[in-house]
Amino acid sequence: MMADRLGERILVLGAGNFGTCLAQHLAEKGYRVTLWTRDEEQAHAINETRRNPLYLSSITLSSRITATHVIDAALMEQTSVVLQVIPTQGMREALTPLKKWWRSDLLLVCAAKGIELGTMELPGGIIAGVLGKEIADRSVFLSGPSFASEVAARQPTCVVAASRDAGRAQWAQELLHAPHFRVYTSDDPIGLEVAGALKNVVAIAAGATVGIGFQMNSRAALITRGLAEMTRVGVALGASPITFQGLGGVGDLFLTCTSEKSRNFTVGYRLGRGEALAEVLQSVGSVAEGVSTTEAAYKLAEKLQVDAPIIKEVWRCLYEQKPIAQAVMDLLTREAKAEFRGIKG
Amino acid sequence: MMADRLGERILVLGAGNFGTCLAQHLAEKGYRVTLWTRDEEQAHAINETRRNPLYLSSITLSSRITATHVIDAALMEQTSVVLQVIPTQGMREALTPLKKWWRSDLLLVCAAKGIELGTMELPGGIIAGVLGKEIADRSVFLSGPSFASEVAARQPTCVVAASRDAGRAQWAQELLHAPHFRVYTSDDPIGLEVAGALKNVVAIAAGATVGIGFQMNSRAALITRGLAEMTRVGVALGASPITFQGLGGVGDLFLTCTSEKSRNFTVGYRLGRGEALAEVLQSVGSVAEGVSTTEAAYKLAEKLQVDAPIIKEVWRCLYEQKPIAQAVMDLLTREAKAEFRGIKG
Repeated sequence: MMADRLGERILVLGAGNFGTCLAQHLAEKGYRVTLWTRDEEQAHAINETRRNPLYLSSITLSSRITATHVIDAALMEQTSVVLQVIPTQGMREALTPLKKWWRSDLLLVCAAKGIELGTMELPGGIIAGVLGKEIADRSVFLSGPSFASEVAARQPTCVVAASRDAGRAQWAQELLHAPHFRVYTSDDPIGLEVAGALKNVVAIAAGATVGIGFQMNSRAALITRGLAEMTRVGVALGASPITFQGLGGVGDLFLTCTSEKSRNFTVGYRLGRGEALAEVLQSVGSVAEGVSTTEAAYKLAEKLQVDAPIIKEVWRCLYEQKPIAQAVMDLLTREAKAEFRGIKG
Repeated sequence: MMADRLGERILVLGAGNFGTCLAQHLAEKGYRVTLWTRDEEQAHAINETRRNPLYLSSITLSSRITATHVIDAALMEQTSVVLQVIPTQGMREALTPLKKWWRSDLLLVCAAKGIELGTMELPGGIIAGVLGKEIADRSVFLSGPSFASEVAARQPTCVVAASRDAGRAQWAQELLHAPHFRVYTSDDPIGLEVAGALKNVVAIAAGATVGIGFQMNSRAALITRGLAEMTRVGVALGASPITFQGLGGVGDLFLTCTSEKSRNFTVGYRLGRGEALAEVLQSVGSVAEGVSTTEAAYKLAEKLQVDAPIIKEVWRCLYEQKPIAQAVMDLLTREAKAEFRGIKG
């Protein structure tokens, strides 16, 4: 066991699958971690039983983790790093009470992926809205193909830490890096955020393609053309196209579109098989972030005037009851153009 | 049925899976196709039975296809398009006899993927060597996620036609495009060729990762980091990095690294499971192009002084009997760097 690294006291916001997994990962690296959840009972259970009763419940949690449902001035004063792992739709509410205690020397690492409904903001935009643009610009965004259960099982995993502030990206890299959890740095947080949000929409489309009965060529084409759409939206927001080629783009898309562990892929697959939307959503529930992201992504693409046929067709199937088979036919009969129209040249 | 398009007489070189599939595709579009194979018996069987006895043998071939084992001046004079589908290692030998009849108005579309052993040339370099640089510069390269059996079954498929000559890329697009076979254009043939060659090496590594027992995070990371290596090699040869994000890069990599239909993936998988190399190669045979491509790719990366750790480790496992588990450990304990080092910035 490594010695305690008392220098960095880490606060993890959110005790879901990924929050729990990152808290454990950092504790195993020797850091003292406070794991915040709004659920008092859950916090109590974690402290009493060394297990999270709701997520990754088979993992025995490190004694360096303390769970809490209360954040106060004293805790924030001891904290040097905040890991934001609350889902996008709950971020604003979770960060707002922390504003009064925020210090400019705090490192904020955000692992949420998605687009906030209503505002159409990415996680960085939410941080800017709550804590100010300066804090947002110095924040680090974490993404990449990383099922929490596999990280917890020490399966080799690679992720990206992106920030406009290179020193802070490196700080996050050093904090999180381990032989089985490799952290690459990037200077393109916007690209990483757009990729993390939109890949769930493409995963629904990929699932539908497979559900309908199309084979490997079709799925590979759908994913690649979906990636081109994600890239066009990113470029319109100032991202670098190459980011979409990395772990947070291709890597995460690959993970999300090939695994039955992905809830978004499953939603699309079951729709493709002919199940009714209401039925699918009822059994999969609100956990399939892609469904709400589709609404936000469609409106964002419209606002940016970006050509995004796959996002549009997924939106029509989810929100206008368009039959999936018709959507696929409409995608297939579009005119084929230059491959990177709207991305280069 | 469409009327005969007598204007374009097409010569397809190579009656393997993909050559047969493209010949049939063009014949179904109404073109007259001559399908060349060096095997006289095979040519005879195709003409007599309307089936290719060796490849895609369940498909009834169109009456617009005539097979031949002889190419002469008269045939070349009638031909306006040549589709080169002979594997890379046999291209030079197949093209050389055609040089004396070549005309500058002939459209050459090359679907071969790989690197020629000994010369380390990509298909375009072989064309330049045999027919001259001017012909090579006006050639079109075809790639993308396209299992021949699925194209033959009219599964929706997307491919790229890349040429330095935009008019010729469009000619190839019009020639080949169909609702179930969408053809995008590109101006980066080098990128497409590098991607097509190197993806087979990454597929071996991905197969090994799965064979050893690593899960989804690891496979997604391996593929994405492999894509970064492919891109670095491409950029060193003058390709555009974005090409690797397209159908011939991500799309084909996705197809090759997720399907048991891929022989290269299977070679890696079985090595990962602990089978001896000789045993695996004996049963898979010379058809796994990735094995010879690995040798050429390793030497090419060395020559270009490009950092290519995955290609290097695959080479060591195939050619220096390095144990797979050790290769994976060596890859995992490398230092993590900026994600796109050697590609941007």
